[in-house]
Amino acid sequence: MSWHPEVIITFIAALAALVFAGFLAMKLNKIEIKMKKMEEISLAIQEGAKAFLMREYQILAYFVVGVTILLAILATPILPEEDRFLALSPVAFILGTIMSALAGNIGMRIATASNAKAADASSRSMSEGLNVAFSSGSVMGMSVVGLGTIGLLIMYSTARFLAGYSAVDSTTVLFSYGFGASSIALFARVGGGLYTKAADVGADLVGKVEQGIPEDDPRNPATIADNVGDNVGDVAGMGADLFESYADSIIAAMALGAVVTIANGREDFMALPLYIAAIGIFASILGTFVVKTYTGTDIYGILNRGLIVSSVIMAVLSAGAVWMLMETMDPFYAILAGLVAGIVIGGSTEYFTSEQKRPAQKIAEASQSGPATNIIEGLANGMYSTWIPVLAVCAAMYIAFDVAGYYGIALSAVGMLSTLGYSLATDAYGPVADNAAGIAEMAGAGEEVRERCETLDAVGNTTAAMGKGFAIGSAAITALALMSVYATVSGLEPKDLSLMDTNVLIGLFLGSMLPFIFSAMTMGAVGRAANSMVQEVRRQFKEMPGILKGTQEPDYKSCIAISTDGALHEMILPGLLAVVAPIVVGISPLGPEGLGGMLAGSIATGFLMAVFLSNAGGSWDNAKKYVEAGNLGGKGTDVHAAAVVGDTVGDPCKDTSGPSLNILIKLMSIVALVFIPLF
Amino acid sequence: MSWHPEVIITFIAALAALVFAGFLAMKLNKIEIKMKKMEEISLAIQEGAKAFLMREYQILAYFVVGVTILLAILATPILPEEDRFLALSPVAFILGTIMSALAGNIGMRIATASNAKAADASSRSMSEGLNVAFSSGSVMGMSVVGLGTIGLLIMYSTARFLAGYSAVDSTTVLFSYGFGASSIALFARVGGGLYTKAADVGADLVGKVEQGIPEDDPRNPATIADNVGDNVGDVAGMGADLFESYADSIIAAMALGAVVTIANGREDFMALPLYIAAIGIFASILGTFVVKTYTGTDIYGILNRGLIVSSVIMAVLSAGAVWMLMETMDPFYAILAGLVAGIVIGGSTEYFTSEQKRPAQKIAEASQSGPATNIIEGLANGMYSTWIPVLAVCAAMYIAFDVAGYYGIALSAVGMLSTLGYSLATDAYGPVADNAAGIAEMAGAGEEVRERCETLDAVGNTTAAMGKGFAIGSAAITALALMSVYATVSGLEPKDLSLMDTNVLIGLFLGSMLPFIFSAMTMGAVGRAANSMVQEVRRQFKEMPGILKGTQEPDYKSCIAISTDGALHEMILPGLLAVVAPIVVGISPLGPEGLGGMLAGSIATGFLMAVFLSNAGGSWDNAKKYVEAGNLGGKGTDVHAAAVVGDTVGDPCKDTSGPSLNILIKLMSIVALVFIPLF
Repeated sequence: MSWHPEVIITFIAALAALVFAGFLAMKLNKIEIKMKKMEEISLAIQEGAKAFLMREYQILAYFVVGVTILLAILATPILPEEDRFLALSPVAFILGTIMSALAGNIGMRIATASNAKAADASSRSMSEGLNVAFSSGSVMGMSVVGLGTIGLLIMYSTARFLAGYSAVDSTTVLFSYGFGASSIALFARVGGGLYTKAADVGADLVGKVEQGIPEDDPRNPATIADNVGDNVGDVAGMGADLFESYADSIIAAMALGAVVTIANGREDFMALPLYIAAIGIFASILGTFVVKTYTGTDIYGILNRGLIVSSVIMAVLSAGAVWMLMETMDPFYAILAGLVAGIVIGGSTEYFTSEQKRPAQKIAEASQSGPATNIIEGLANGMYSTWIPVLAVCAAMYIAFDVAGYYGIALSAVGMLSTLGYSLATDAYGPVADNAAGIAEMAGAGEEVRERCETLDAVGNTTAAMGKGFAIGSAAITALALMSVYATVSGLEPKDLSLMDTNVLIGLFLGSMLPFIFSAMTMGAVGRAANSMVQEVRRQFKEMPGILKGTQEPDYKSCIAISTDGALHEMILPGLLAVVAPIVVGISPLGPEGLGGMLAGSIATGFLMAVFLSNAGGSWDNAKKYVEAGNLGGKGTDVHAAAVVGDTVGDPCKDTSGPSLNILIKLMSIVALVFIPLF
Repeated sequence: MSWHPEVIITFIAALAALVFAGFLAMKLNKIEIKMKKMEEISLAIQEGAKAFLMREYQILAYFVVGVTILLAILATPILPEEDRFLALSPVAFILGTIMSALAGNIGMRIATASNAKAADASSRSMSEGLNVAFSSGSVMGMSVVGLGTIGLLIMYSTARFLAGYSAVDSTTVLFSYGFGASSIALFARVGGGLYTKAADVGADLVGKVEQGIPEDDPRNPATIADNVGDNVGDVAGMGADLFESYADSIIAAMALGAVVTIANGREDFMALPLYIAAIGIFASILGTFVVKTYTGTDIYGILNRGLIVSSVIMAVLSAGAVWMLMETMDPFYAILAGLVAGIVIGGSTEYFTSEQKRPAQKIAEASQSGPATNIIEGLANGMYSTWIPVLAVCAAMYIAFDVAGYYGIALSAVGMLSTLGYSLATDAYGPVADNAAGIAEMAGAGEEVRERCETLDAVGNTTAAMGKGFAIGSAAITALALMSVYATVSGLEPKDLSLMDTNVLIGLFLGSMLPFIFSAMTMGAVGRAANSMVQEVRRQFKEMPGILKGTQEPDYKSCIAISTDGALHEMILPGLLAVVAPIVVGISPLGPEGLGGMLAGSIATGFLMAVFLSNAGGSWDNAKKYVEAGNLGGKGTDVHAAAVVGDTVGDPCKDTSGPSLNILIKLMSIVALVFIPLF
């Protein structure tokens, strides 16, 4: 085993991320909660979250075992001698699932353990509340990049240096690692999205609408499930989604770099993505310090400043790395293009969804003529909002390809995701702040504490929206990078993937159709799961009249069980669709050409649908908040009622169907890569 | 000029269509209306429709003059000697606009003149009412196919036989004829869609919701505009849309046939599309007799039987034509594939939107939990409904290409549209029946007459929905045929249009984005135009208190003017987008490759969005009708209120944004073809 500085340096960076996460977790652990009621509620949420994860792991186990056996069968007896290296595939797959699940588990545990602490800390000052919530988010962010990188390094080193595989073969094994990460993302994102909205919509429909009790009222049996859902969807789901993008982007860049290595023996193309990852981790750690040392009250401003700091550090250091490592600065421009595109997409999402900007305000104004005009305006806004993200991704693609071909596209994905440690910290801060606000309400904390928590929560909503945009953009560019790998590795000629070939065109149509079918399935699933929740809450109110009087404790656990079972049950069909569709098309007469068209169609349309659904949902949500802030008549008016309709429609759009499309497009691409030998 | 039987036979068929249309028109003209009040209302609608057309023609004139000058400039001084034949292009363009406008004008005049006659005839019997309404629709159908074919033959004969152009050059001139038809379609479909929904939504919001007066109440100042809108949107708009598809499909097939003619001198490939068109005209005429001779009450059944009869005649005769003309039966399978796909798509639309089927009923049931769940269920249904149309088009494409390459794809489009004379008659019957029901209501006709008119109207809604599905499917396959021509004529190699080329991929992303932006624009435009209407109706009710008491006549004309101006004003931006986007991409660094990708992306995503929006809108509409029929509590309940919200949201989806996408995808393709010399 020769001296490979990129592996060692990246390993050190990953360890640093984990040590930093451990240090933060210990500090959080030591914080004591003064208000007993807060602790009780937090414990109930922790229990519910654990219950969901346990059930999820059980179902996941079947899936993992099934896929592992399939990969093992594919790997050994069927394949010719020269492909026997694929025997490592099942191992890589399992490692990918373990690393992603571990990161999600850590993130969920720390988030559910920190919510009450953040609420309690807010009683001292806003910045202390921010510090607790953001530290919790940082643990998640650092765990994802640390564990994601370490797993990848272990697999890569095993294949390349222990087993002595060629550069290309080593990266081929890594595809299965990505597939493992994708599988967890499928369960966490789609299942989590279903869980959170079944609970949320169910809780609102009976609690707010039928009984007229406020949100987060402890008398509502679904309220704990609702709070668990925030963590299941926005922490574990978002984390697994970005874990997948992060790992896949590095794998794609290494795979395309490996082609160069095999061609002329140069290792620098393979090494660069790892260096970029290492630099990104350090930049992210430095970015978090900006937030942690802050004592003021401009929460949104400071979170943004941290992002800018980590991005600038990232840009400067990666320029240096490229300068030292390569003969040309060209790859740096690809990295920079991705980094900038990610920031632009995040900013665009903020513009199209924030209640302080025109789009959401126009939706609020449209609510004056009733719910129908509110919906029409929201749909139009969601569709319109696609233009900046699409142009940003196209510009990044154009620049990246221009300077470094397909490899450049993969590098721009790595660049966009390099500061994930920081950006995920701001994302995962949101649900903690959201829970904190809920707990402050449920525990009956003082006015000032509740207000501080509300402020933290409001900023969290904005960062969560930006994070959603970033997750979509990074999913699109990662999927494009994977498609580039598919085009390279599958041995297809450019003319094979021509739009003048009907198989490719048919594949394109089918691929464009899948996001619609997938969204329809997940949207319908939310309706069904929410309906079960409504029945259960109604039953409890009817059979236990003491609940509404406040003399009887509602049965939170049965609601949690309903959300859990509903989510995991409804997840199966869309999940199967994502895994099976590319395999079926690949082995059909449409062949690998049709599959290539299908990937392109699913990425283009899936990206657009994801932006459309997420931004429509986000803007409906904030239009309602704008009205609730006292504009256009405020709470209790017809305008507000119309805005609530939009918000309810937006819930499954922005938290289930939209984000699930990120998984669809990446998963289909990685499945296509893993099963190339079949076609 | 040699003996060209295909030109002469098709000319005879086209003349037959026009003579038949003239005969029907004369018969309709002779019918006298017994009820004076009905005649008055009908005259007001006719006047409003004419006013819209006049204003539209004024704006259109600028556009036509502008484009003609542009084409003339392109044609002569810039081009090299061998392209000078393009001097005929401006003439072809103008002829295309004239023929399409003429067909639309005839259809509108006859429809607005027949509505009261149909209402009056219904007082005698249902089948007499059907006969009048269907005859009016037949005039429209026959005018479209007759004028469309004759214009095309004139242009083709002029180029090929008078000017002595080569086969390929003659079809190149025809592209401008198609461009002319597309331009009218843009104005008629997008402008008409905006007009009809501005009037409809505006009338409903003040009349039904604020004042609680019934639909079509003569006291509502917007009610005449609303009835005009049905004709402007569903007669003129739908007619121009299908005129464009019809002409473009024949042109595409002839252009691909011309390549064969140039290669080996065989003329049969160019002749076949014309023969198919001729056969389709005769089959359509025979189909109408099935309906006209009917005296029973199963309206939906008889309209369907007519479709089956004309389709079977078409299939048998075209099999014979292929057998006599060609060496192989292969082209027949392509024609048949298109014919069957059109019928399947129509049937699928009916399933996903009819109130007698589960999807619309499920939406009605979802309304029990309020408007939000109604909207979610409708969105999910619209997305889900894409699968059959997509598979039908893919199957037709696969078969057609398999048997006859690109030429087969164009032939399948010709096959799908061949019986347009009949199917457009059933489409254009709908708005006449709709108007008849409105007039019967406004004129205070007897209970029995109103009920018969309602029955005719209900069937009209179903055929209109099927017609919408058919229009979308035929737009998609026509656009694919045009794209095949683009790929062939532009001189690009298969590898140039490869998805492995970033320019193609970026074009694909941009093309996929345009349907979202276009829909957002048209949807927002409906909101703005409807809002102006609301202000005007409110103003009239306030300033003229006699209106609501029934002592004062409302000012119908000002409402008509508002709808007209709003529609034509709001049409400009999306219209420009459709024309300019392909030119900009073509001359940009993305080049003709990027433009190819853009066409593919816009067709795939535009097709899906069109189906999604149209079917979601149709199913919301019928879910409301299902409730109004007395199910789930019926009118006046909360369930009904929720269903009305869905219906209002669906209005711009199904009548403006969805159908406008048909134009977008065809127009972009034809613009790409016409401006190839620029790239």
